[in-house]
Amino acid sequence: MKLSDFIANYLKRIGVQHVFVVQGGAVLHLIDSVDKLKGINNVPMQHEQAAAMAADAYAKVSPSIGCTFATSGPGATNLITGIACSYFDSIPTLHITGNVSSFRQSDSLNVRQYGFQETNIVEMVKPICKHAERLCSPEDIFWLLPKLFKIAIEGRKGPVLLDVPDDFQRVVLDNIKCKEVLNQIKPKAILNCRDYTYFKSNLCHSNAFEWLVDKLRNKKKCIVILGAGLKSRQAQAQAVAFCQKYGLAYLSTWPLKGISDSDDHLNLGTFGTHSLRGNNIVLQSSDFILSIGCRLDSRATGKLDLFAPNASVCMVDIDYFEMEKFKKLNFSIDKCFHLDAESFITMLGEHLGDNIDLRNQEWSEYIDYVRRKYNFLPDYNIEMVNPYKAVEVLSDYFSNEQMIVVDTGTCLPLTLVYAKEKRGQKYISSYNNTPMGYALPAAVGVAQLQLGSVVCMCGDGGMQMNIQELATISKQQLPILIVVFNNHGHSMIMQTQDDWLDSNYSASSNESGLPDIQFSEIASAYKIESLHVRSIVELVSLAPSIFPITKPLLVEFDISSKFRCEPIIKYGEPLEFMSPIVNRDEINKDMNLLKGTS
Amino acid sequence: MKLSDFIANYLKRIGVQHVFVVQGGAVLHLIDSVDKLKGINNVPMQHEQAAAMAADAYAKVSPSIGCTFATSGPGATNLITGIACSYFDSIPTLHITGNVSSFRQSDSLNVRQYGFQETNIVEMVKPICKHAERLCSPEDIFWLLPKLFKIAIEGRKGPVLLDVPDDFQRVVLDNIKCKEVLNQIKPKAILNCRDYTYFKSNLCHSNAFEWLVDKLRNKKKCIVILGAGLKSRQAQAQAVAFCQKYGLAYLSTWPLKGISDSDDHLNLGTFGTHSLRGNNIVLQSSDFILSIGCRLDSRATGKLDLFAPNASVCMVDIDYFEMEKFKKLNFSIDKCFHLDAESFITMLGEHLGDNIDLRNQEWSEYIDYVRRKYNFLPDYNIEMVNPYKAVEVLSDYFSNEQMIVVDTGTCLPLTLVYAKEKRGQKYISSYNNTPMGYALPAAVGVAQLQLGSVVCMCGDGGMQMNIQELATISKQQLPILIVVFNNHGHSMIMQTQDDWLDSNYSASSNESGLPDIQFSEIASAYKIESLHVRSIVELVSLAPSIFPITKPLLVEFDISSKFRCEPIIKYGEPLEFMSPIVNRDEINKDMNLLKGTS
Repeated sequence: MKLSDFIANYLKRIGVQHVFVVQGGAVLHLIDSVDKLKGINNVPMQHEQAAAMAADAYAKVSPSIGCTFATSGPGATNLITGIACSYFDSIPTLHITGNVSSFRQSDSLNVRQYGFQETNIVEMVKPICKHAERLCSPEDIFWLLPKLFKIAIEGRKGPVLLDVPDDFQRVVLDNIKCKEVLNQIKPKAILNCRDYTYFKSNLCHSNAFEWLVDKLRNKKKCIVILGAGLKSRQAQAQAVAFCQKYGLAYLSTWPLKGISDSDDHLNLGTFGTHSLRGNNIVLQSSDFILSIGCRLDSRATGKLDLFAPNASVCMVDIDYFEMEKFKKLNFSIDKCFHLDAESFITMLGEHLGDNIDLRNQEWSEYIDYVRRKYNFLPDYNIEMVNPYKAVEVLSDYFSNEQMIVVDTGTCLPLTLVYAKEKRGQKYISSYNNTPMGYALPAAVGVAQLQLGSVVCMCGDGGMQMNIQELATISKQQLPILIVVFNNHGHSMIMQTQDDWLDSNYSASSNESGLPDIQFSEIASAYKIESLHVRSIVELVSLAPSIFPITKPLLVEFDISSKFRCEPIIKYGEPLEFMSPIVNRDEINKDMNLLKGTS
Repeated sequence: MKLSDFIANYLKRIGVQHVFVVQGGAVLHLIDSVDKLKGINNVPMQHEQAAAMAADAYAKVSPSIGCTFATSGPGATNLITGIACSYFDSIPTLHITGNVSSFRQSDSLNVRQYGFQETNIVEMVKPICKHAERLCSPEDIFWLLPKLFKIAIEGRKGPVLLDVPDDFQRVVLDNIKCKEVLNQIKPKAILNCRDYTYFKSNLCHSNAFEWLVDKLRNKKKCIVILGAGLKSRQAQAQAVAFCQKYGLAYLSTWPLKGISDSDDHLNLGTFGTHSLRGNNIVLQSSDFILSIGCRLDSRATGKLDLFAPNASVCMVDIDYFEMEKFKKLNFSIDKCFHLDAESFITMLGEHLGDNIDLRNQEWSEYIDYVRRKYNFLPDYNIEMVNPYKAVEVLSDYFSNEQMIVVDTGTCLPLTLVYAKEKRGQKYISSYNNTPMGYALPAAVGVAQLQLGSVVCMCGDGGMQMNIQELATISKQQLPILIVVFNNHGHSMIMQTQDDWLDSNYSASSNESGLPDIQFSEIASAYKIESLHVRSIVELVSLAPSIFPITKPLLVEFDISSKFRCEPIIKYGEPLEFMSPIVNRDEINKDMNLLKGTS
């Protein structure tokens, strides 16, 4: 068996059904080996960046990991932004790069490059990979590939990279050894792998649970925060069931949207710097926060020293340093659980038992009051398409299992904050690396799994960044609805320029050098049907013909460049004062309503 | 003066007129400062990869350096493939990335990310930068920026990167100190900077020149190789004048195409693995090779132990390790000059004096004989456009100052080998990193200098990789003729698959998953005029209407996917046996014609 055949077989055994690839001189054999093996397929992309983003999104919905093959040099470096997406979102992906033959490597020569398209990709990706390594001898593949796979999926997940010299790909390995290694793989067991060494480090867990049960019983204004540490559908369902069982209201970060229905009374939805006023006021009014699998980054907390001023905070994270960091940031976390989210919820359930109700009537009524009063669709009266309404109209048509891939820019808060949530949906974005251009290749990635149709929400800036993938969608006739929020510029940048630079829109508007593109025409050129929507009335009448999504379709919304996304937290403000601020005094008054009850 | 204003002023003072930018949250101030300064402009690109490639190409034709601004995280990582182009081609570029504010950096927190879109770009680019550094204190900018600029341009040139936290960009600096630093810059002096510490290391230069003069006088079959170390037009002209003065025949590497006319008798043109048979036979027949500013990489030498079997080799390089490496590779270089190409030629001229003619009649006749016999346009009788002829027809129309930007893939050897050379032309490509997708943004880069029209030669694979830049070209109405060699797949990959994988065209053909794209339609969607050419007859009749190039135009050649580029060196063959091999015995016989004359 050729080494490249072994790699293909290994990937198939661990459950990889699709490898996202771009051809190149140093990756021929790997692609050929997958091509010739049944049950695993190459997905040829138009750019390696798109391949890595597709693999990231694929791993976000698949029980397996995401995988790419790229050639040496530019092929490998083109992956980098996509690999970073997996690193910062803790997504297990495996990137295999071809490199120049082992006898053409510049290692000891002290020159910039010796072999054609040689590049030291391993060193370059180390800051954004859990591990990266070059194959130094063909037989090392037997332990190195399992090692890399294990690193990718255990503990806090993330990307790994293996660099394979061209000549090694062609080496014929010992067949018996190959079969031995392949037969050792227990695909399901390995994918549920947890690294329990993590959890041994905190021996006070038992006392900590007693502390926590006491707080949950005695605090009056508890909020649970659910974060992306709840990776699997199963874990998410368990978390929701836990909150429902004990009557605890929960907020969730964007990646969790779709874990419950909008009308689940306890499901408050999103919070943070781009969110809804009422939800943030609830959070800031709480006296106890139990954060599960959320690293409480600055988009979640706003200005840290003004976050949750009256609350004890209890934090559960698989990554010890995500909790430890708060000491250095002078923010007090009252109790840390160094556990994975699923284990924590199971253990807490055991401590709480079955006959307890943690609901607090006064707090529930307060939550309802504040949310009814402060959560509303912003007033919008600029001509062309009202994007808030557009999201509302569209999301009404989204199915219960809809996968919605979202790009960055204004379409991200618009969709994540205002789309109607249905349990079973999945909202996929690159939440922490947030590159423009993620959504289109990501949609290609998740569509490979054939779990239903995909909606891709993207701005005009983001569309341009990986627009070449329209060709992939067209070629494969994927059931993807591409929604382009064309606001003729980088509106989120303009919003910042309004605040900091007297609205001098350099390099962010059509007037300052950005092209004004009609994406419906680009789609047609790639042989994708398209619609150009200029008003909400038009959208309402067209929507029934758009759904269900069975083939590629691009719908372009013509949005004013004057559109600014609301509400948001401006620099230095606490979470309760989202701009535009409705009435500072009244918010303060409302936040004091339950002041004495702690 | 704000720190970002100081940077803008500094760039202007060192001669940067254009900064290639993509907007983003952490780069607002830098872009704003350039926007507000006269005499220097932002060029908004559609993707940071394109910005870095545009800057690379810009620096290849401009006397100044190439410069980009990008935001943190994905903005910065998107630059990487373009930065690698500058590193491997030794091009001075300066990349300034914004990063999260200094107080939001994860440095000591041990977490993957703290600030929004935070990424450790400095560590990531170190393998492809001469230097990369983060600004750690605002006042450091006064010495750090000059230091980085000096590193970029001195000795063997290359890219540098400066990472500037967002909050530092806004810091107001001491005006007096700013003016002091700015006034110290002597723009012209600094751009001609050479680091003479390099040259001091080899004290035997004087004896070496005597040795060299002796060889040039007594060897009968001398060949000069001119390489990209001859960076400036002036240096190239000096080298050509040198060869003409002493009657030395010269071959040149691809980046030098355009240093002389095709019909200059001594100018033999290209050589190496993708070249012309006759030229390689001449090189392999020589008894003395003087290589100036060429690192003699594997594309130049073919299989190293079969390179120049009967020749003494003398090598001139600014990078000592490019010569030293041959010891480890067991290939003997007879004499090394650790000098920059210009200094070397000046010094050699002084040693040779004015009254010497190094021409050898027999060798000249042999060169003519071999080149007439073995350099010919390949037979091509597949239907659709004959790409050899297409290059011939087009290049007849190229002006004497034409800038021709070429992508990788088959269009690269096609253009570099078969286009008719005119003195004063400039062929720009990413010769050593060779990413697909370089040409389109590179054309945008060189077009900024307004030195005349630009031709962009690109394959279908490469066009897709940065196709979004059609929007930049359209917006700016740049005088760029985009020629797309659409052979409906990755033909250079197919050629390798023919050799190694029984023509199993996985992920390289329309049949195996690549889309078949009509680029003329994509161009129209971006509001660029286009022509679709299906035969040479059509091209011949249309060509007069294509030139002169005054506005954007895309011409798509419909080429058969069966097209394979000829001739090339296959793995393991010496340079004289280019495939398809015409007649091994006859080549051997011809190579023995002058055997006794050494």
